Amino acid sequence: MPDLHRVSDRLTRLAASFSAVRARSLALAEGLSAEDMVVQSMPDASPVKWHLAHTTWFFETFVLGPHGGRQPWRAEWGFLFNSYYDAIGDRHPRPKRGLLTRPPVSEVLEWRAVVDGQVMDLLETGPSVEVLDLVELGLNHEQQHQELILTDLKHLLNESPLKPAYRSAEKPVAGTVPPLGWVAHPGGLVEVGHAGPGFAFDNEGPRHRVWLEPFRLADRPVSVGEWLAFMADGGYATPSLWLADGWARVQAEGWRAPMYWREAGQGDWRVFTLHGERRPDVAEPVTHVSQYEADAFARWAGARLPTEAEWEVACRWAPDREMAGLVVHPPAMDGPTPAGRVWEWTNSAYLPYPGFRTAPGAVGEYNGKFMSGQVVLRGHSCVTPPGHGRPTYRNFFPAGSRWQFSGLRLARDA
Amino acid sequence: MPDLHRVSDRLTRLAASFSAVRARSLALAEGLSAEDMVVQSMPDASPVKWHLAHTTWFFETFVLGPHGGRQPWRAEWGFLFNSYYDAIGDRHPRPKRGLLTRPPVSEVLEWRAVVDGQVMDLLETGPSVEVLDLVELGLNHEQQHQELILTDLKHLLNESPLKPAYRSAEKPVAGTVPPLGWVAHPGGLVEVGHAGPGFAFDNEGPRHRVWLEPFRLADRPVSVGEWLAFMADGGYATPSLWLADGWARVQAEGWRAPMYWREAGQGDWRVFTLHGERRPDVAEPVTHVSQYEADAFARWAGARLPTEAEWEVACRWAPDREMAGLVVHPPAMDGPTPAGRVWEWTNSAYLPYPGFRTAPGAVGEYNGKFMSGQVVLRGHSCVTPPGHGRPTYRNFFPAGSRWQFSGLRLARDA
Amino acid sequence: MPDLHRVSDRLTRLAASFSAVRARSLALAEGLSAEDMVVQSMPDASPVKWHLAHTTWFFETFVLGPHGGRQPWRAEWGFLFNSYYDAIGDRHPRPKRGLLTRPPVSEVLEWRAVVDGQVMDLLETGPSVEVLDLVELGLNHEQQHQELILTDLKHLLNESPLKPAYRSAEKPVAGTVPPLGWVAHPGGLVEVGHAGPGFAFDNEGPRHRVWLEPFRLADRPVSVGEWLAFMADGGYATPSLWLADGWARVQAEGWRAPMYWREAGQGDWRVFTLHGERRPDVAEPVTHVSQYEADAFARWAGARLPTEAEWEVACRWAPDREMAGLVVHPPAMDGPTPAGRVWEWTNSAYLPYPGFRTAPGAVGEYNGKFMSGQVVLRGHSCVTPPGHGRPTYRNFFPAGSRWQFSGLRLARDA
Amino acid sequence: MPDLHRVSDRLTRLAASFSAVRARSLALAEGLSAEDMVVQSMPDASPVKWHLAHTTWFFETFVLGPHGGRQPWRAEWGFLFNSYYDAIGDRHPRPKRGLLTRPPVSEVLEWRAVVDGQVMDLLETGPSVEVLDLVELGLNHEQQHQELILTDLKHLLNESPLKPAYRSAEKPVAGTVPPLGWVAHPGGLVEVGHAGPGFAFDNEGPRHRVWLEPFRLADRPVSVGEWLAFMADGGYATPSLWLADGWARVQAEGWRAPMYWREAGQGDWRVFTLHGERRPDVAEPVTHVSQYEADAFARWAGARLPTEAEWEVACRWAPDREMAGLVVHPPAMDGPTPAGRVWEWTNSAYLPYPGFRTAPGAVGEYNGKFMSGQVVLRGHSCVTPPGHGRPTYRNFFPAGSRWQFSGLRLARDA
Repeated sequence: MPDLHRVSDRLTRLAASFSAVRARSLALAEGLSAEDMVVQSMPDASPVKWHLAHTTWFFETFVLGPHGGRQPWRAEWGFLFNSYYDAIGDRHPRPKRGLLTRPPVSEVLEWRAVVDGQVMDLLETGPSVEVLDLVELGLNHEQQHQELILTDLKHLLNESPLKPAYRSAEKPVAGTVPPLGWVAHPGGLVEVGHAGPGFAFDNEGPRHRVWLEPFRLADRPVSVGEWLAFMADGGYATPSLWLADGWARVQAEGWRAPMYWREAGQGDWRVFTLHGERRPDVAEPVTHVSQYEADAFARWAGARLPTEAEWEVACRWAPDREMAGLVVHPPAMDGPTPAGRVWEWTNSAYLPYPGFRTAPGAVGEYNGKFMSGQVVLRGHSCVTPPGHGRPTYRNFFPAGSRWQFSGLRLARDA
Repeated sequence: MPDLHRVSDRLTRLAASFSAVRARSLALAEGLSAEDMVVQSMPDASPVKWHLAHTTWFFETFVLGPHGGRQPWRAEWGFLFNSYYDAIGDRHPRPKRGLLTRPPVSEVLEWRAVVDGQVMDLLETGPSVEVLDLVELGLNHEQQHQELILTDLKHLLNESPLKPAYRSAEKPVAGTVPPLGWVAHPGGLVEVGHAGPGFAFDNEGPRHRVWLEPFRLADRPVSVGEWLAFMADGGYATPSLWLADGWARVQAEGWRAPMYWREAGQGDWRVFTLHGERRPDVAEPVTHVSQYEADAFARWAGARLPTEAEWEVACRWAPDREMAGLVVHPPAMDGPTPAGRVWEWTNSAYLPYPGFRTAPGAVGEYNGKFMSGQVVLRGHSCVTPPGHGRPTYRNFFPAGSRWQFSGLRLARDA
Repeated sequence: MPDLHRVSDRLTRLAASFSAVRARSLALAEGLSAEDMVVQSMPDASPVKWHLAHTTWFFETFVLGPHGGRQPWRAEWGFLFNSYYDAIGDRHPRPKRGLLTRPPVSEVLEWRAVVDGQVMDLLETGPSVEVLDLVELGLNHEQQHQELILTDLKHLLNESPLKPAYRSAEKPVAGTVPPLGWVAHPGGLVEVGHAGPGFAFDNEGPRHRVWLEPFRLADRPVSVGEWLAFMADGGYATPSLWLADGWARVQAEGWRAPMYWREAGQGDWRVFTLHGERRPDVAEPVTHVSQYEADAFARWAGARLPTEAEWEVACRWAPDREMAGLVVHPPAMDGPTPAGRVWEWTNSAYLPYPGFRTAPGAVGEYNGKFMSGQVVLRGHSCVTPPGHGRPTYRNFFPAGSRWQFSGLRLARDA
Repeated sequence: MPDLHRVSDRLTRLAASFSAVRARSLALAEGLSAEDMVVQSMPDASPVKWHLAHTTWFFETFVLGPHGGRQPWRAEWGFLFNSYYDAIGDRHPRPKRGLLTRPPVSEVLEWRAVVDGQVMDLLETGPSVEVLDLVELGLNHEQQHQELILTDLKHLLNESPLKPAYRSAEKPVAGTVPPLGWVAHPGGLVEVGHAGPGFAFDNEGPRHRVWLEPFRLADRPVSVGEWLAFMADGGYATPSLWLADGWARVQAEGWRAPMYWREAGQGDWRVFTLHGERRPDVAEPVTHVSQYEADAFARWAGARLPTEAEWEVACRWAPDREMAGLVVHPPAMDGPTPAGRVWEWTNSAYLPYPGFRTAPGAVGEYNGKFMSGQVVLRGHSCVTPPGHGRPTYRNFFPAGSRWQFSGLRLARDA
């Protein structure tokens, strides 16, 4: 027999969380025009409107339909806002999300309000644990899309020759950052993965044992200043530093600096941020680098990337952020720095943990089918919603991706 | 010494025309959301906002700057809204026009009003014939973009699975159309090209002599009903009917019907129009066919496409349209039908007439540099602005283009 | 009743011609390894072995099968060596011709001998005029492939970093060439096209009237020295000289000189020829330029390209060549120079002449279906087989093609 | 002080091995024409001639130059036959290896003989252990290319519509194969990787500890009969069985069966082998499947792919083959079957072992730089040269590769 107090507590927390998370998505869209919200700047990115609609579709499709007896608000929109769930049916092709001028933003916002009300109504009925689990999944799903709203929007705004700012900010005084230090770990048989109470995605478990050799992990991410030294030392022009695939990309795409860097004059770089274009700040953690670049940097530095298990057992965790309002750029560092400014590339392929099973049905497509050809990133970034991360969190992107807030933390054999 | 009355008349007419043409562009955008106006659905098409801005840029760049002493309203917009004038400087890449969420529509409309005022101010100063010529060119240029606004928007709306209508309309009662007749022409030494008073684009002249053999020209365009017969007879599956390049396109793109046709069920076609999806109307002229398809149809029909000179000396002309409001789909036919419902493909390559010279400077890039790899279409279409066409008008597109309102009229050797 | 003497004469001449033409193809392959003969260096080019086989397939398919009652020597080879005749059936894809290591060259040569014998046997039976016509077509077809053998082989050998010579030759002493002169033509109603006795391809007729304005034609092709002046004057970097499509190609492919030119050091060019790499010879006609480049040069020179009718009525003709052995590079000029060193680009699209009809059946696919998207070249080149050209000959390639021996002769309005 | 007897023994063995391995490469080319040996059928494959030359270049570049004081036999060939060693310098692009008709096969064979003599001469001088290590590396390198000679040639011959056999063979009597059994392993802390005496590639070490959960491994590879059942059950049409990347490939490339399978009639399959086309033999291990297909099959079968560590500690090993002559197709099975018929896909990404370091210099590019974006295969295949495999051997290819002899062996959690 379930602990009713506990269920009731959870229900209360979930309802509050639902309101807060749903409201935060709208807050992110504040100040954007409908034009800003409809355009898709590359196949990997989605329009803000699409994110607002898709997260709503998720609740309608996985919660309200099967568990609330609700018909879709607009039957034909399911085709438009399904992302990748084959079990749900056909869907609009991803590279064409930016062609959806209809429904307009205003109707999507109306839909959001309708669905919000329906979910709150459902929660008031005291639904089953299965429903609560689905709502919680939906909120974590929406938080992931909140991060994508910012990364995708950054990509779009950077495409504009006008280089507009999303949020204004004081230009920080450029600081310096002390040399990085190393935290030693003795290795041995450790446990990793999620097993506790509280929400986690399926790919974070089962918790399991891993044998590690002794190693050291840097006490902060690599800084922009260190990256400039790598560039000055010919890092982007030295094939022996690179994985073969990475070197091929360097040549094919002419990489000479992280994404969003632009050379205004000989050696005079500008960095596009959600605050507009700025000069590089040497004390910031470097970001918008691919795993190929992270790996080349590590080799240049006489180090390597950590495995995800090493990272999980050795990295300091700093969950609280966004105290004083929305953060849209990684703050500068002034010494040892825990996780939380940039996603940190590991050298682990994104693969199932021993004993991993996908859930049955469409929800089972959430994570498992992407366990191929991608690399794990750990931690969280400055644009991850507050409360969303965990030390066991496994983010994943292809090794060549650069449009996320991705940086790196070095490791070494002991 | 110029005839002052005449200049004054022209000035008066031009000022009226300026107001009317500029206002018509805005009228075309009525009912569209900012979202509808910003998105680019393929590299060949441009967003409505871009058309509204580019036509304004044209007056600012070619009239107000050199002849009105005006600075650009926003210096950095020149880069955004130059289409293809190398002599003006660098420009935003055409396939990325849809990424320009900034400036928003509202600012573009503000800019239009500012430029309109400045041009009217300039006209009040009684400017030189050169300036009047440039304003007249700018208005004809804007009319061309008015047609593109509709064809590009049609392409965008068709991409939506919702198949939205741009303008509502009664569904016409499907009629029939009598068999086509032939108008004979004796050939011989004829004159073609523009030479009279009144505006014409540079590519329409010089007027010159051409020798023609006797021929016949159909008294109306090919109808949808005739096209359905071609389809039913395996027209799209019979390589001997096709030019080699055309057959390659049929296979590469899976053409089985004109553009915007969709097979809802076996042999049950739907046609997307700016009034939404409809069943094919056999009495309408067929449209949205490429020259490859037009040529294959003509071969199937035991005929051929006319040359542009044949067309010019033999086709009946019907300039007046849009009496009772905006027309956005070719009306059905009920007998002999002059030019004006669809652009009519010829079998003439788009090449300079004997003695053709481009104008010096950037305006010289208007037409001449496109005289390669394209085919001439003659007449005008249902979406050509009223008063814009002429019997000497030379429209041109690549042989495989289908998103314009392009159809065909058959010819035969006498 | 046919003139029997005449038929007999023709038969005798044709039999002699058959032996000579077929032997010449083999002579062209002398000195090549089987490896040289099997590889395909780009989709537009074919391997030498394929040319030797395809020309044999032509006689087997169009002459021996229908008119000699012969079965194909190897039934399955028809699929391999059909080039583009849809009416004959399916065929091996053109870009994969280089994957045909089987049958080996030795078997193709054996097949050639068998078919040669069978055609000679058929000729001894005194066949119909239809058969004689087909044999004559087959020989002219084979001569076209003889030219392609050399142009395709040149492309292949140039791909080798070893830059091997096909035939050795003394390096000519670089000469100079006097300024070009102009030949005036009064224009008027002229006749062009083939109508006489003797062989011509279907696309050369019907002979018909064309009206021409007065014009002048240069008395020799443009020289390498003149091309170097164009390059030195920034010809490849000045967009106002170029057609829009041409300029797009210049930028996309980085054109800075004709094809087969390589910059060994700053401004120090090498030209790959079938005699190996050489320094540019200023007195040679420039070759391996596209029509885009030819057109830009003409604009730079204050001239234009001729139409094909202008060329036909005004160009001097010099049919005799290859007196002292195989020529594989255009000889230098020392004054007025008739047609025959390089193909000369015109500004005429390749379109049917008035009254043109394709022959029924597969042979009708020979020329007609390519009358779209291509440009006419006139004359003949140094590698055209002796006796193959005619003043009415219409060669055609896309405007961007450069691997043929294509140059230009300037024209001007009178 | 080194054990001189041991060095001398090793020298003797190495010299014998050198002769045998070098001769075996030539034996593989027997019966091939120069045409078969020069053509490249896809960018991933190389011509047989190139393999013969590149393996020779390896000895010349890494052994004879630095340690034998020899100049390259032909200085300009280094550019042609370097595969991917950036530290050696520029090289001919991989997709253009098939354009190298020069030098001809005959000269490459002459070069091989020269280099063979020089290496034998060097061995007679009693060279250092470093030289012996390099020669041994060169021989193992050549054996890898021997396998590629067969897989690349198979790809080429399959492109021929004639479907020629490389070696003739009796068509085997189709047998049956009993259901597969499972071998249990208790898991725990195991050691994997190479550490013993004898040659191994750098990527096989260091030997290290790994923690495994209990699991079971199948006692034989998946058979063609089982694969036909997967196909019949809609395996290639059921997205829920597939990784997202795999499903995208299924759709993009129209996969409906393993590579080299062709549907002659409805459900009537033919399989191209190096013995020519045959009907599928249900008792053979399935081969030429990608890891995507292997993974989908495993999911369909309620199993999974093993990790490489699981495979290494649990798989039976059967090194001896090729007793009675060259084997070019995986033999049928009749019960439990150890490794050695097909490469077996694992679910392990190809990544460095803990403590892995690349060797300094160009030889260090051998393996390390490919440790990204690829998947490990274990075992050896029917076309792996005798004596080349080891239980610690790590082969690797992208998950979508199919042209190697790749199959699978199932695993399950205990």
